[in-house]
Amino acid sequence: MSSKMKALVKEKCAPGATIKQVDIPKLGPHEVLVEVMATSICGTDLHIYNWNRWAASRIQPPVILGHEMSGNIVKVGSAVKSWHLGDYVSLECHFSCGICYQCRTGRANICRNCNILGVNLDGCFASYVRVPENNLWKNNSNLPPEIACLQDPIGNAVLATSSIEMRSNTVMVTGCGPIGLFTTGVCRVGGASKIYAVDYNEYRLQLARQMGAAYTINPLQLDPVREIWKDTGGEGVDAVMEMSGSEERLQDGLKAVKNGGIVSLLGIPKEKVSLDLADDVIFKGITLTGISGREIFNTWYITSALVSSLLDAGQVITHRLKLEEYEEAFSIMQSGKCGKIILYP
Amino acid sequence: MSSKMKALVKEKCAPGATIKQVDIPKLGPHEVLVEVMATSICGTDLHIYNWNRWAASRIQPPVILGHEMSGNIVKVGSAVKSWHLGDYVSLECHFSCGICYQCRTGRANICRNCNILGVNLDGCFASYVRVPENNLWKNNSNLPPEIACLQDPIGNAVLATSSIEMRSNTVMVTGCGPIGLFTTGVCRVGGASKIYAVDYNEYRLQLARQMGAAYTINPLQLDPVREIWKDTGGEGVDAVMEMSGSEERLQDGLKAVKNGGIVSLLGIPKEKVSLDLADDVIFKGITLTGISGREIFNTWYITSALVSSLLDAGQVITHRLKLEEYEEAFSIMQSGKCGKIILYP
Amino acid sequence: MSSKMKALVKEKCAPGATIKQVDIPKLGPHEVLVEVMATSICGTDLHIYNWNRWAASRIQPPVILGHEMSGNIVKVGSAVKSWHLGDYVSLECHFSCGICYQCRTGRANICRNCNILGVNLDGCFASYVRVPENNLWKNNSNLPPEIACLQDPIGNAVLATSSIEMRSNTVMVTGCGPIGLFTTGVCRVGGASKIYAVDYNEYRLQLARQMGAAYTINPLQLDPVREIWKDTGGEGVDAVMEMSGSEERLQDGLKAVKNGGIVSLLGIPKEKVSLDLADDVIFKGITLTGISGREIFNTWYITSALVSSLLDAGQVITHRLKLEEYEEAFSIMQSGKCGKIILYP
Amino acid sequence: MSSKMKALVKEKCAPGATIKQVDIPKLGPHEVLVEVMATSICGTDLHIYNWNRWAASRIQPPVILGHEMSGNIVKVGSAVKSWHLGDYVSLECHFSCGICYQCRTGRANICRNCNILGVNLDGCFASYVRVPENNLWKNNSNLPPEIACLQDPIGNAVLATSSIEMRSNTVMVTGCGPIGLFTTGVCRVGGASKIYAVDYNEYRLQLARQMGAAYTINPLQLDPVREIWKDTGGEGVDAVMEMSGSEERLQDGLKAVKNGGIVSLLGIPKEKVSLDLADDVIFKGITLTGISGREIFNTWYITSALVSSLLDAGQVITHRLKLEEYEEAFSIMQSGKCGKIILYP
Repeated sequence: MSSKMKALVKEKCAPGATIKQVDIPKLGPHEVLVEVMATSICGTDLHIYNWNRWAASRIQPPVILGHEMSGNIVKVGSAVKSWHLGDYVSLECHFSCGICYQCRTGRANICRNCNILGVNLDGCFASYVRVPENNLWKNNSNLPPEIACLQDPIGNAVLATSSIEMRSNTVMVTGCGPIGLFTTGVCRVGGASKIYAVDYNEYRLQLARQMGAAYTINPLQLDPVREIWKDTGGEGVDAVMEMSGSEERLQDGLKAVKNGGIVSLLGIPKEKVSLDLADDVIFKGITLTGISGREIFNTWYITSALVSSLLDAGQVITHRLKLEEYEEAFSIMQSGKCGKIILYP
Repeated sequence: MSSKMKALVKEKCAPGATIKQVDIPKLGPHEVLVEVMATSICGTDLHIYNWNRWAASRIQPPVILGHEMSGNIVKVGSAVKSWHLGDYVSLECHFSCGICYQCRTGRANICRNCNILGVNLDGCFASYVRVPENNLWKNNSNLPPEIACLQDPIGNAVLATSSIEMRSNTVMVTGCGPIGLFTTGVCRVGGASKIYAVDYNEYRLQLARQMGAAYTINPLQLDPVREIWKDTGGEGVDAVMEMSGSEERLQDGLKAVKNGGIVSLLGIPKEKVSLDLADDVIFKGITLTGISGREIFNTWYITSALVSSLLDAGQVITHRLKLEEYEEAFSIMQSGKCGKIILYP
Repeated sequence: MSSKMKALVKEKCAPGATIKQVDIPKLGPHEVLVEVMATSICGTDLHIYNWNRWAASRIQPPVILGHEMSGNIVKVGSAVKSWHLGDYVSLECHFSCGICYQCRTGRANICRNCNILGVNLDGCFASYVRVPENNLWKNNSNLPPEIACLQDPIGNAVLATSSIEMRSNTVMVTGCGPIGLFTTGVCRVGGASKIYAVDYNEYRLQLARQMGAAYTINPLQLDPVREIWKDTGGEGVDAVMEMSGSEERLQDGLKAVKNGGIVSLLGIPKEKVSLDLADDVIFKGITLTGISGREIFNTWYITSALVSSLLDAGQVITHRLKLEEYEEAFSIMQSGKCGKIILYP
Repeated sequence: MSSKMKALVKEKCAPGATIKQVDIPKLGPHEVLVEVMATSICGTDLHIYNWNRWAASRIQPPVILGHEMSGNIVKVGSAVKSWHLGDYVSLECHFSCGICYQCRTGRANICRNCNILGVNLDGCFASYVRVPENNLWKNNSNLPPEIACLQDPIGNAVLATSSIEMRSNTVMVTGCGPIGLFTTGVCRVGGASKIYAVDYNEYRLQLARQMGAAYTINPLQLDPVREIWKDTGGEGVDAVMEMSGSEERLQDGLKAVKNGGIVSLLGIPKEKVSLDLADDVIFKGITLTGISGREIFNTWYITSALVSSLLDAGQVITHRLKLEEYEEAFSIMQSGKCGKIILYP
């Protein structure tokens, strides 16, 4: 093994990124080195690539991008006992501290001292990536690498839907980017009786129908709230999965959900959001929950089982490119004419 | 409408029952009269028919049998406002008191002063049945009557499975009578990753496979515990649905379930059951829950949605007979060579 | 019994109200007449008295005010079986429809077709009040009437605190009106380890200390967020009880609560509220729940037990007046120099 | 520091134990050495001392006894970063594997590959004890060592009571050994409205009254079921905490609990237990949960807050002895005339 590897690096506090040769990371006693087989691009990667306000406030170049991946272990640290060369793995990208209140009570996904791969630490858009042994997840050997890397965003969808009685429920999914699409699929295989998907993007509404949305609504053409009230006979939906980050869609969701309903918030608004808490939350007895990451590893067990059986996650993949084609990949993402994009290093 | 109707009546404290003409019930102000379209036979009906020990302790003849049904409202009491002639309904057979602690805290299914149709009160194996308005459930108009009457036992299965995260879970169903078969189906459409069904009866194991059991085990041939531990790679199952009432099957279930697992108890044991609580429950951190009836009406909403969409409940129906053929029907049930038997009045 | 009674009536679409003689209500078959022994004034009553925007949009005069009360049954409707002359009762003021999804699934407090005593229907600031039998709650005979009438607002506090593991938790209560004060007491007797109470009103902060707040914060003097972070060693509080309706206090609460914390929303904001959902809810994994009314009757069982044993609710009562002194009562409430005000009819 | 230390060692497969000098343990990179300040004796220690059937099947001498303790860190392993010399700590005695399903889903207390201090591994009845860094709990500096060591058994009580709405509930505690006594106290400070404590031992019933039991019942004198039904007006208790391991007491509990009630099983039966599942569990809709250890560390946060504020755990301590007086200590425990016994090394 050479001492150098290929990596997609954010080098400067400015838009863009560069493919370059960098040192293969050295391992601490509890770390492993994984040879990357497949990666996928997250919206977060696009924000960093574009160098938006959030990225500027959070990222300190140089850093290797990427956090969704699958691959094989090629080296293990001196104290690693449970993992072995050749193990086929994916990884939980939130590297939690292990000692804060949240970590010690089973909520490491909202650790107060969390580092995130591809954000604070060198990521996986590279030939190799270094991972603490506690962050590894063993994949079923027959799971294709391009599906295995998707367990990170599918896990977001699984966590967002975890607090609802899925069987029989009606669900509104606002925002049909990849996580909205996975959420649609996860609801369908969990027994949801009807899924309403909302987006401006017709390309993505078409994908939502493939994933199991029975009714897709483009707000440019129809009022989502009115359509849902009509179609549910005045009941409203049981749950809203807010995956867009849009104030307008969240307001729609709060109007469309029935009294006592549940709203999962996963889409990240760019600015403050204005809500009519009195009429839309308090009098209705609504519960809103912020969804961050995945429960470690409860969500992974569920996700792993779903991608191995009922959920056809591959339907969301619309493009497969080489890591070197990253400029085209980010350009496609920017256009919105895509589901999930796989990058092969 | 004549003043008499046909009914299957338990007349004496002895085995058997008789078809005879009886008075059509008179209505109180909050009651309705339903013309019965389809009924199905429950194990409870068989116990009463056979006049077993439980029946002898509980039933005071004469009483009309039966509690699973669908039909149309043909008459409403003077104070009934929410129900109308022609409404297509099923019914919740637990008539609760409305004033005990359980009723006032949303658990009317375990009301302390409950009357049960076909047990304490005249049942639905008849041309007409009288029902309090609060016990009615409105059916979708396109649901076949023989499916609509099954919502009672399917509701048992729905309640038994309500406390588990179904998606991805492995489930062991012990006992493949109709409720075990419905449970298998309910688990499958809720996203269970693998269902193990256990019974001595090969006829019913075949039905279990149709309903979605991936692995059926006949304890005469194989040890269920050993098979499940082998097949789950030493993990054990996430949940056990005990539908047989057999001490041996429950002991198997407690051995086969993983630490922290969930066991729903629905099958009624004939005698006391001996359990190794130390090793099989306490050290393993197991939760056992007794399942009785259906949550009124939370379970009905879920059940109704399932039979209208994902769950093919009709697969469990193996015989359709006229009410007059009740002797044959009970004889088939006794033999065990059946799924669910429909009786048309 | 005369056919007339004294009542405090909102007669016109304008501020104020009038004491006058009105007909004693006639009973339907399932209703009872209660002779009122004690009532208490709610913020809602003040809004109606003042005729603010919400009142103008909701109230159709003439209507008798008031919904918090205790008294004795003096007459029962022809079909009432479970209640008797002389029964000492309080009442649940949300008269739910009984047939909507929410009512049929144990959530009648958020019934879609709800009528509210003293809002849509004639209330209890009168010598007698008419109540459906299903809305009655039987009081312990040794509970003073002025405490018994408080079970309605204490029930709000009980429901607001129901989803948190109280033992050991730290709680921030924003807004120390009567419900905030009861919430403080309910948290204390439930084992909360430290309660932080926030209000501008020093009179009420003093009451909060009496009810068990270990640390009271006046935002005019200190920044609640900074104080709480300092005092909790950088952990933040486990739960926030938002009882003020103030945007600023809710924003404080979201900053002061720890990752994974719980926020109950009960105070009614007058306008839309602007929230930083990304940083304060989503990344922190916060759950917000709108609290409306009381669970019927689960909350009442808890409330009733608390006022009969651990909770000294009388400490919140600061004024006791006759119904005829209503102008003084509302004037005191307007000033904020009070806890709960009792009105005796 | 000398290389030898004092320890109470089970040397042979026979009753008894011996004080002797043994090597101070050597540390791995992630371990620390704690100088023991106070320990307390658990029923498990007595079983091992007496060499009962369970002990004979589980223990492989030689092993140092004891697992409940508090002390100061005097040495840290080379890779330990979060703990420091002088830290005042207690410890979680279940050393879990970290990689099984249970460990990876937040349920390390029922880890499938668990080692237990003083059972599989050398314990804390010694001058020093070796502990993995992940098992340490930092104590408040003002907590007395003899209280700090009790957090292990108090944690059992906290976990046993975690699934019930404590406020207002009535609770039956069967078995008033130390954990039963702590459970009584934990229920009281959590707001339970009435606690019934059952034991044959009058000495311990007296302690139960001190800890907050309003009604103590000796089954030699009164039938617990009849007394509880009478005293609760025919309602039964909301929850049963089974801390005795007695079949008879569990059967009592199942009779005394109300429909829909909760039963926590913590006392370890010596043999199989025979239960009337039909009448006492299934038709009543009862939930039974096996309680093992403590949630790591969720239970510790709660326990730590309780012993620092509301819970007067010291009331349960009846004897304080030196480690060298272990024979007297075990003899007192055997007699049952004690609450908790502290051993100072």
